[in-house]
Amino acid sequence: MAETRWNHRHILSLSRFTPTDYDTVVNTAVSFDEVLSRRNKKVPTLQGKVVTNLFFEPSTRTRSSFELAAKRLSADVLNFAPGSSSLTKGETILDTAKTYLAMGADIMIIRHAATGVPHAIAAELDRLKTGVGVLNAGDGQHEHPSQALLDLLTLCTVLNPEKPSIDSLKGKKIAIVGDIIHSRVARSNIWSLTACGATVHLAGPPTLLPPEFGAGFQRSPVDPPDLQRQLVQHTDLDAALEGADFVMTLRLQRERMTQHLLPSLREYHRQFGLSHQRLQACAPDVKVLHPAPVNRGVEITSELMDDSERSLISQQVTSGVATRMALLYLIGTGGQSAADIGQ
Amino acid sequence: MAETRWNHRHILSLSRFTPTDYDTVVNTAVSFDEVLSRRNKKVPTLQGKVVTNLFFEPSTRTRSSFELAAKRLSADVLNFAPGSSSLTKGETILDTAKTYLAMGADIMIIRHAATGVPHAIAAELDRLKTGVGVLNAGDGQHEHPSQALLDLLTLCTVLNPEKPSIDSLKGKKIAIVGDIIHSRVARSNIWSLTACGATVHLAGPPTLLPPEFGAGFQRSPVDPPDLQRQLVQHTDLDAALEGADFVMTLRLQRERMTQHLLPSLREYHRQFGLSHQRLQACAPDVKVLHPAPVNRGVEITSELMDDSERSLISQQVTSGVATRMALLYLIGTGGQSAADIGQ
Amino acid sequence: MAETRWNHRHILSLSRFTPTDYDTVVNTAVSFDEVLSRRNKKVPTLQGKVVTNLFFEPSTRTRSSFELAAKRLSADVLNFAPGSSSLTKGETILDTAKTYLAMGADIMIIRHAATGVPHAIAAELDRLKTGVGVLNAGDGQHEHPSQALLDLLTLCTVLNPEKPSIDSLKGKKIAIVGDIIHSRVARSNIWSLTACGATVHLAGPPTLLPPEFGAGFQRSPVDPPDLQRQLVQHTDLDAALEGADFVMTLRLQRERMTQHLLPSLREYHRQFGLSHQRLQACAPDVKVLHPAPVNRGVEITSELMDDSERSLISQQVTSGVATRMALLYLIGTGGQSAADIGQ
Repeated sequence: MAETRWNHRHILSLSRFTPTDYDTVVNTAVSFDEVLSRRNKKVPTLQGKVVTNLFFEPSTRTRSSFELAAKRLSADVLNFAPGSSSLTKGETILDTAKTYLAMGADIMIIRHAATGVPHAIAAELDRLKTGVGVLNAGDGQHEHPSQALLDLLTLCTVLNPEKPSIDSLKGKKIAIVGDIIHSRVARSNIWSLTACGATVHLAGPPTLLPPEFGAGFQRSPVDPPDLQRQLVQHTDLDAALEGADFVMTLRLQRERMTQHLLPSLREYHRQFGLSHQRLQACAPDVKVLHPAPVNRGVEITSELMDDSERSLISQQVTSGVATRMALLYLIGTGGQSAADIGQ
Repeated sequence: MAETRWNHRHILSLSRFTPTDYDTVVNTAVSFDEVLSRRNKKVPTLQGKVVTNLFFEPSTRTRSSFELAAKRLSADVLNFAPGSSSLTKGETILDTAKTYLAMGADIMIIRHAATGVPHAIAAELDRLKTGVGVLNAGDGQHEHPSQALLDLLTLCTVLNPEKPSIDSLKGKKIAIVGDIIHSRVARSNIWSLTACGATVHLAGPPTLLPPEFGAGFQRSPVDPPDLQRQLVQHTDLDAALEGADFVMTLRLQRERMTQHLLPSLREYHRQFGLSHQRLQACAPDVKVLHPAPVNRGVEITSELMDDSERSLISQQVTSGVATRMALLYLIGTGGQSAADIGQ
Repeated sequence: MAETRWNHRHILSLSRFTPTDYDTVVNTAVSFDEVLSRRNKKVPTLQGKVVTNLFFEPSTRTRSSFELAAKRLSADVLNFAPGSSSLTKGETILDTAKTYLAMGADIMIIRHAATGVPHAIAAELDRLKTGVGVLNAGDGQHEHPSQALLDLLTLCTVLNPEKPSIDSLKGKKIAIVGDIIHSRVARSNIWSLTACGATVHLAGPPTLLPPEFGAGFQRSPVDPPDLQRQLVQHTDLDAALEGADFVMTLRLQRERMTQHLLPSLREYHRQFGLSHQRLQACAPDVKVLHPAPVNRGVEITSELMDDSERSLISQQVTSGVATRMALLYLIGTGGQSAADIGQ
């Protein structure tokens, strides 16, 4: 098997990921998907390495997914529990990270309620020439790369189960619905989906749409040349759904109500909630995604969420383990021969 | 060694367990007891499998026991921590279970303060044809099967240390004392002990005795034919203790006082607390059990609890690990050749 | 390699440790340091053994260090979480420990806010002839042996990187600064440093200096004969720093202010805070230690803490894992041939 090219020490943001990067992640994750179909799902890839879950913002779901991915690669996992931690004793976040560094962490998975914390830690680790990799597991309202990458694997697998590939995304229409402005999931998905050639249609109430994705949007030199035409905003759900191949709806934080950004959950559901009926405007075989946890009856009806013909929510969770194994593998080994994956 | 017959995908309730089922559990647990006496106590039985502890109702003791059992079978263990979970974000219990299913859980160990939650999850997993097994680690005031099964192993081992067998329970008198009505431990023990041929005498204040075990009690077609004579209720402790071979006393929840079900702890202890003196009515070699944690000086005197000649409390904990290894083995492998246990 | 002599079943206090004991710990830890420089940092020494972290007083940092040390020795680790435990249900600490004993714990690592808890548990385990070892991970304001031993490894490694040895400490001056009276770290370090031939100068506000280390101090028959001259108290920082080879500053608990033991953090920092300037009184190559977590700008300036030429704080954390592997190895195997360490 050919060598995998991989030159990111950290995975902090997808804003500068290239199609080659996405291709590598998807191909590696597909290999691990095959591992996960075996009787013994463990591989010795990270035997003797230490993976640290530094979840300053608690999350059982994402933390469990990373923990399982690391254990299936035979790594030792340390979980940092903020409740009982030195943070309450006045230690800085950087001091906490450096403590785990000094203990021997090889990879740090970091979630924090503030934007940029994983980047700050990564910068410090680089300054100290440690070689330790940082994986952003969600920072503020900024990015959530592993979520967008597991969504990517999910989409590619649906489009071509035999040989999942990012090429199959070219020209597809994907609607992202809901609280875009506060969503790190939406931000990371916008980078990955447009880079792979899909067109992304954002839909939500005007108060929940981000100004930065309006007309004239330009992100970076690695942008696909026609990015502007690939990213469209709507305040009307039906326009976004029109002919969509996939619809991703986002979790609505209940505090948006107290912040007076929304009138009521009922009204939100009436305007932006997904249901079988609303999906009639989409492509005939449209599928629905949600990063979970779901507010049933708000973002989506229970019937649609539980419809295994339409809902990819379970598959997203399953893709999460394979994708995170791939990311830990790529960071932890620098992308050696992919033959290693399966021994 | 003969094939083990085992056809329960889940262990939710003991109400329909047959003597053969109890026999299989005890024999398998005895095999693991032997494993635990070796220098290296790990076996590769569940290598690569994922065991999830979904403890919606927290419990360090029972969770640790299951965790150790799973680790000694070489499984990977994921602990679900309700405090920092999506439940606070409005996700349903079933959604949580399905998330761990989608991550790749092979066995789910479930504890919940409400009756029937493990059954509901098991039913959904069956509906989805997942093959995943559910182990009820305590649901409301309903059942706690693994506790009753570890009690069974403890009793059989005391009665015949060389070759523990459920046959030795036939005709024995076992008193269960205290807050029967709220006790899932008592309920599960009633099924197992009567099915194995013992006679069970319940004793407690009238407010803490369950109406359903009164005269005319009938449970199911697999009942021992003379069950009615095997289950007797008393509001007087001495009648229950008269000639008893074993006395199991139950934890008294302090909130029973605020619920006006009891006058005072002191009065409760005077009437139903176990002591060396009270045991004089029992068989000469009577032994005492308690599911723990113990309110010293309430259900039982400290002297009796710490008397290793009388108290089986430590042995119950030790039996717990072997019993839970047996249950995970039986659920996880469907009861293959028992020769597998020891390799 | 020669046999290691080791005859402590528990590590509870350093007050009676001999120079030979310290020598054994340092040599064993150095061997594990070598293991930790390899690609695969795991050794099978404690395979199949169970190490229990009973942290009645929560601590992410120390618990993680012990957990990683145990995992690198291939032990199975059980973490006890006091928040969700039976302690809230009225169970005694000793009952909790005996529960983990009955489950099969081989080593118990115990931290508690009250002095003497690890000793009480160890005494009970001995009375029961269990052979289980107890490691004190901090008890009240009494002792924190593993911290002092990792400090010892750090000092010996700095003084002689090629061949760390306690001999190099002879005649060195070490200042310990701050809240001595409440510090278990200071107490344990006083035993180890004086036993290895160093002179210890304590400095702090009069309200935070312990009376028992005043003139005429005598501890035990194994005291170095000239201990009195080896332990000096100052209420003036500069006298303690004068010519010091190492300065260890201690964490200041903020509640000391509300207890009226200190006027203000600012005033404390002015009098006892370490800075590059204050260090000018020390030996030219003085190094600084802190048990962490650090209150930046209180005990020490941020500049000094982050100066890798002066600060040993990261190295202390790194030494912690190797030292704790050594302690678990010595307790868990009784100090077999050191050749075992590296297989």
